[in-house]
Amino acid sequence: MQTAPARQSGKHDAPKRSNVAIIGLGTVGAGVAKLLIDHGDRTARHAGKTIWLSKAVVRDLKKPRDVELPDGILTDSIDEVLEDPEIDIIIQLMGGLSPAREVMLRAMESGKDMVTANKALLAEHGAELFTRARQLGRSIAFEAAVAGGVPIIANISQCLSANQITSLEGILNGTSNFIVSQMDEKGAGYDETVRLAQQLGYAEADPSMDVDGTDAAQKLAILAHLAFGATIDWRDIPRQGIDRLAPEDLQYARRLGYRIKLLATARLIDDELELSVAPTLIRGDNPMAAVRDAYNAIRVVGDAVGPVFYHGLGAGQMPTASAVVADVIDTAVGRTPITFQTLEYFSSEHPPRAAQRDVETLRGRHYLRLTVANHPGTLAAIAGVLAKHHLSISSVIQPEPGGDGSAGSSGGDSGTPDVVPLVIMTHEASEGAASRATTEIEALPCIAGPIIRMPVKG
Amino acid sequence: MQTAPARQSGKHDAPKRSNVAIIGLGTVGAGVAKLLIDHGDRTARHAGKTIWLSKAVVRDLKKPRDVELPDGILTDSIDEVLEDPEIDIIIQLMGGLSPAREVMLRAMESGKDMVTANKALLAEHGAELFTRARQLGRSIAFEAAVAGGVPIIANISQCLSANQITSLEGILNGTSNFIVSQMDEKGAGYDETVRLAQQLGYAEADPSMDVDGTDAAQKLAILAHLAFGATIDWRDIPRQGIDRLAPEDLQYARRLGYRIKLLATARLIDDELELSVAPTLIRGDNPMAAVRDAYNAIRVVGDAVGPVFYHGLGAGQMPTASAVVADVIDTAVGRTPITFQTLEYFSSEHPPRAAQRDVETLRGRHYLRLTVANHPGTLAAIAGVLAKHHLSISSVIQPEPGGDGSAGSSGGDSGTPDVVPLVIMTHEASEGAASRATTEIEALPCIAGPIIRMPVKG
Repeated sequence: MQTAPARQSGKHDAPKRSNVAIIGLGTVGAGVAKLLIDHGDRTARHAGKTIWLSKAVVRDLKKPRDVELPDGILTDSIDEVLEDPEIDIIIQLMGGLSPAREVMLRAMESGKDMVTANKALLAEHGAELFTRARQLGRSIAFEAAVAGGVPIIANISQCLSANQITSLEGILNGTSNFIVSQMDEKGAGYDETVRLAQQLGYAEADPSMDVDGTDAAQKLAILAHLAFGATIDWRDIPRQGIDRLAPEDLQYARRLGYRIKLLATARLIDDELELSVAPTLIRGDNPMAAVRDAYNAIRVVGDAVGPVFYHGLGAGQMPTASAVVADVIDTAVGRTPITFQTLEYFSSEHPPRAAQRDVETLRGRHYLRLTVANHPGTLAAIAGVLAKHHLSISSVIQPEPGGDGSAGSSGGDSGTPDVVPLVIMTHEASEGAASRATTEIEALPCIAGPIIRMPVKG
Repeated sequence: MQTAPARQSGKHDAPKRSNVAIIGLGTVGAGVAKLLIDHGDRTARHAGKTIWLSKAVVRDLKKPRDVELPDGILTDSIDEVLEDPEIDIIIQLMGGLSPAREVMLRAMESGKDMVTANKALLAEHGAELFTRARQLGRSIAFEAAVAGGVPIIANISQCLSANQITSLEGILNGTSNFIVSQMDEKGAGYDETVRLAQQLGYAEADPSMDVDGTDAAQKLAILAHLAFGATIDWRDIPRQGIDRLAPEDLQYARRLGYRIKLLATARLIDDELELSVAPTLIRGDNPMAAVRDAYNAIRVVGDAVGPVFYHGLGAGQMPTASAVVADVIDTAVGRTPITFQTLEYFSSEHPPRAAQRDVETLRGRHYLRLTVANHPGTLAAIAGVLAKHHLSISSVIQPEPGGDGSAGSSGGDSGTPDVVPLVIMTHEASEGAASRATTEIEALPCIAGPIIRMPVKG
């Protein structure tokens, strides 16, 4: 093991060494620094040369850190790093869009190759950053931007390169998955589970990007580009978060033999790409249904290889650092520059190979949870609207009032509730038909609250 | 799509093109040819240049083929290919050790980079072939040699390179897994299931290398080298096949909440490597237990990334071809040569980083199925031997005679069988203790047949 003091006194074997700097020493940055400093022998073995942490840029030099750095590494000057011609690779771990974008552009203009975990930055400014990198003969590696420790970027870009990928689905947001798993297993409510996730460090103070599907949509936009050559603005991906999920939905899903997961889906149909992010009912015997806590999973189907399933930790200090350091090694040995140059991500010279399919035409089964007036004719009225829109019912749960705590609220003392839940699963139908039927049902006089609608997977 | 006729009339854009030849046009070879000929646009996109199938060498030019080749590609002369200076990459798909080894050495001496799926060849002659490749400045890619379409070689060598891998376990033989799944689900016997596997093309006429654990041990030896830097002769890996499995074992395992799979395991303990291949009881909620038919799965644990689970088709024409063609692309663009040069597989200059641990010290739980005399004192005698060797019992099944068809054979007309099965699960113990106890129990007068012993995983 090459410990920090030994490294700091090391000889300057420049050709056998790549110097790297980290910008942003938060949780992931500290993990990356640990791997580089404590396991220099390991990175050297995989890179065929020393990977040397030269600098780590932080905003506040006095803030206590989760990692012990040798003297002279910590600095609060980005310029010091950008202007140092000895630094070859910059690990850009600043969050947010600005100044992350500007720092990245300046670093590449200073001749640095980049490694980043900032998926929001790539989702917003990927085209600009990748084009500029190519103009400058630089590379950008971003394995850690999607699915944390699961190396899905390399797998799609390299390992499965003999395939036309035909579909891809994944649990890409660890925070949401932790919250949904906890609600499912503990029967707890959404708000209290979010608080628990925050206490445990699985959710940020403002978790909205995670729970409303934004984060998963940004990751899906990146994967859709790699897998299908599609250029997608993540805002155009139909998305639904987990913030409207109730414990009852998880219970009904279980009764029907399903689990609910926030699933990101991309499917190639007649050269068009169907994309969505939504809490989805997944059959209990599908491996995706068993993905718990902060784990991520991705199922990729290729026309030659068939289905390949990946499962691992989608977030956390060391899993993410694992992806970042693999990228640093790939960049230092020269694999990343080759891949980056060859695949021409987001190049304007290549028209997108697949356009996004109209959301209305997406076909699938649907789960509907309605809150309905407890009087005769209700089910008939609802079923009538469904039939009108050619939605065929595959199963219905109307819980016996009083059968369980969630089965309705009484307006008086009679014990018979005025309002009861009703759960309907449909056979396959188009999104457009399901959406129109839902709107029409919501306007019926027997409906006492918003309808929860989710897609269903086999 | 670049169809074959168009390609054959193509201009000679040499620098933008890699010429490849296939040696051996069996099932996998035909799949590779299909991908190269029918999907030239796809390989070109991933390689940044044309991947051109120049030649395919076969023994018998007249044999009907599973693929339509443009005129001029098929040849029965290996020399024609080796002596053609325009051919850059050779896809070596001959089975067996000789002349595969000699062809590979000659091809590299002729300046060709190699792609192969021949795992037996690498397990036997890896050190020689890899050393020679390095001397000649050539590379050998072998993704298809382990786990078919699951890209485990690239994942261990590149994607998880920031990690010390601490353990690795996998279902690496699709033939065995197909047989065991079928026996488990259909309740059929071993011999008849092997015949079914042969009819369906999942097992060869002589399936012994698959069912006796040889194939899995050869693959494990390769993975152990990549993951742990260990140099292992596959013959030194303790191995047990599925050929002694009875349907009863699968049934008892289920009753205990387990499934049986042929599992290859490598675990790093105090810098020593514990290796084994054996039919193993795996708890029903472990994803490995759900791996069915010809699928393979591998669970790798890294000290940074944690557990990563891979699942996909471990054999078959197109999944294997997917791995081969990914290797061809990686070789053509230059990634494989970098990886091959950097990692120095099987280099004699690097002492092995982990030695194999003495099999006697391996610790784990054990499943024992005994055939015992149906008289008082039998269980006491067996339990006594187990206690003497410090094997503690966690559960026992002694089926009620007549309770099911397999619960014993009667010596007369009385209805009480002379001989009954007895299943014992132990708590954790060393392999040495379990082995000594088993030998001692087998010598007891109450034992009426060989003892089946298998490891048990949580």
